[in-house]
Amino acid sequence: MSIESNMNITKLPQGFKAAGINCGVRRYRPDLALVFSETPCVAAGVFTLNECKAAPVVYCQALVPSDSIRAIVTNSGQANAATGPEGVENNLRMAAGLAKELGCSANQVLTASTGVIGQQLAIEKIVYGFPELVRRATNDADLFSLAILTTDLVPKTASKEVALSGGRIRITGVCKGSGMIHPNMATMLGYIFTDVVLTPELAQKYLKRAVDLSFNRISVDGDCSTNDTVFLMANGSSSVALKNTSDEEIFFQGLVDVSQALAKKIAIDGEGATKLIEVTLHGSPTQEIADKATRGITVSPLIKTAIHGEDPNWGRILARLGAEGVPAAAIEKMVLRVQGQMLFENGRPTTFDRANVRELLKSNVVKIEIELNSGSFQSVAWGCDLSKKYVEINTEYTT
Amino acid sequence: MSIESNMNITKLPQGFKAAGINCGVRRYRPDLALVFSETPCVAAGVFTLNECKAAPVVYCQALVPSDSIRAIVTNSGQANAATGPEGVENNLRMAAGLAKELGCSANQVLTASTGVIGQQLAIEKIVYGFPELVRRATNDADLFSLAILTTDLVPKTASKEVALSGGRIRITGVCKGSGMIHPNMATMLGYIFTDVVLTPELAQKYLKRAVDLSFNRISVDGDCSTNDTVFLMANGSSSVALKNTSDEEIFFQGLVDVSQALAKKIAIDGEGATKLIEVTLHGSPTQEIADKATRGITVSPLIKTAIHGEDPNWGRILARLGAEGVPAAAIEKMVLRVQGQMLFENGRPTTFDRANVRELLKSNVVKIEIELNSGSFQSVAWGCDLSKKYVEINTEYTT
Repeated sequence: MSIESNMNITKLPQGFKAAGINCGVRRYRPDLALVFSETPCVAAGVFTLNECKAAPVVYCQALVPSDSIRAIVTNSGQANAATGPEGVENNLRMAAGLAKELGCSANQVLTASTGVIGQQLAIEKIVYGFPELVRRATNDADLFSLAILTTDLVPKTASKEVALSGGRIRITGVCKGSGMIHPNMATMLGYIFTDVVLTPELAQKYLKRAVDLSFNRISVDGDCSTNDTVFLMANGSSSVALKNTSDEEIFFQGLVDVSQALAKKIAIDGEGATKLIEVTLHGSPTQEIADKATRGITVSPLIKTAIHGEDPNWGRILARLGAEGVPAAAIEKMVLRVQGQMLFENGRPTTFDRANVRELLKSNVVKIEIELNSGSFQSVAWGCDLSKKYVEINTEYTT
Repeated sequence: MSIESNMNITKLPQGFKAAGINCGVRRYRPDLALVFSETPCVAAGVFTLNECKAAPVVYCQALVPSDSIRAIVTNSGQANAATGPEGVENNLRMAAGLAKELGCSANQVLTASTGVIGQQLAIEKIVYGFPELVRRATNDADLFSLAILTTDLVPKTASKEVALSGGRIRITGVCKGSGMIHPNMATMLGYIFTDVVLTPELAQKYLKRAVDLSFNRISVDGDCSTNDTVFLMANGSSSVALKNTSDEEIFFQGLVDVSQALAKKIAIDGEGATKLIEVTLHGSPTQEIADKATRGITVSPLIKTAIHGEDPNWGRILARLGAEGVPAAAIEKMVLRVQGQMLFENGRPTTFDRANVRELLKSNVVKIEIELNSGSFQSVAWGCDLSKKYVEINTEYTT
């Protein structure tokens, strides 16, 4: 299925509008973002597991799933995390201020913040920006996608139309990254909008499953941020509902496609990254081993640096698989391919053409494929390489 | 208690001899190391949890704990991991060859290998080196400590005398690193020798506990190697036994002191490291949370890069604590000190003197102290900073 993404215009589903402006929190870049539905809509959310949750996360967790949400307002530059009671108060002012502009109640407005931890929101500037923000809203997500960015280099959107039995619907997603490798300029934020008809319960269930298959599989340095959030808004504007199992499957697959497209964009835009790494694993004896193994490879600094150096270092992959609990017997039977070239089978390295594999590793997408021949479970994960630039960015950044 | 370490001569306990020579596996550096006891001795071992274990690890696991070990022979340069049946055979030849020189049986000889994964041992060169290796053995550990190194910059030894009720005994340790951040030039290896009288069961129990308090608390990038091993050999040459609880406690503390001194040396000699990081945590509601939190901080690339940049980035520490499951209520009550300066308390950052803290962070030992005020459990962990040099080493190293 094709994904329309990052083209000139990212269309929102019917009945949604979005905007992004600069309200003065940051010097030049857009820092205030809004998306709203013309009618109350179903909303679901998946939130960071960090014990130390930002004020907007705690607030939104209390409101979703819901069938009466109108808008999500987001500021970038300040995370509103570790801000105490004043942070909670500022977050409420943000929701109430936007609600007033839209003519709805405060608890119909979700909030998100991303940026530096521990600073109080510049709430006056934010509220002052709301009239202009609402006035500028259009049916495309592009200014919105710019205004939620922090250290991201590029905006990240994905959109697709899906044909259900009752008609066509649209799923549009926007996110910022780069996953949990930005816990300080905190946050991975994701927003998915659709005009399909959904109940809050289904929205929550589908979103959770789609996040598990996408955002939860991207590269991480183990640092889970205080603000991570993915929202799903479904306003039913298409009047198309999920009438049967086939509709449900097609819609869910569309949601997964959009989520995975966004997740990969976060991985490739990781701090200092030059390559997207895709790890697929088949033939695992259990799902848990499959998931731990693929994720373990994407977070290994040794494998990430080897790929940055375009080095087909199968030994590091082998060691990591063992460390993640892949049974020795499965490693013996493993076939390991990098960029389609077989590096290891029958318990030992093949006599592969190193120069050729190094050449293939110059690509900005690196595929690692593992067949354990020990069961029927499979998994996939995405990551990025680790460069000196990552160290530079994180060494020199000051709270 | 003072630790004698890395001085001119590292004395072995009575009845132990050691040597290190170049046998030709590596070009110039010593690559073959031996330690043996003049009499059969008690030996214990703690081994990597990696499913993919090197041949010497599988071999030694079968032999210890034991009361009849004579020697440990170690080669550096080749890890004898992922080497299949041929690797098992070569390992047996290594044990048998050394046994013949010493005049004991092969199953009285333990083996260890460290170096590149997937290469077969240059076993002919190794065996050819044994006569000279045995001939050169002396009562100091220094050539031994050099011959086990791979990418380590400095040899690592620690030794201390301990007074028990029956007399004085010595505990001497040697190790190489740098922990699991070298899974390819695989291995953390540790050797601890003592002339105290111990049973195999006590030796195994004490070693396991000492490793948990030392080597298992040093910085890791999550890559657990295929060869990690720590040995304890106790030959009873002092004729001093543990007669009472006080003796047991004093001996165990000595073992922990030597183990921690070695572990810290591994952390500070981590690839590209310029600073040792020590994280202590008090007042935790559970031991598990305390251990996860301290270890989580030492492995966080974001915290490691911040410290490399001498940046008092309390936000990253806070976010990591939350991610490791420290309850939000405990974070609210936390007092966080870096280099003795309070950065956070009462749920918010203090107005600390940033320039002063940056100056204090120029030290090559950085102390992070956390008081959660939420219970009675405590923990400590050691790590190192993350520099561009780490990326350089691991990008450019080729299997």
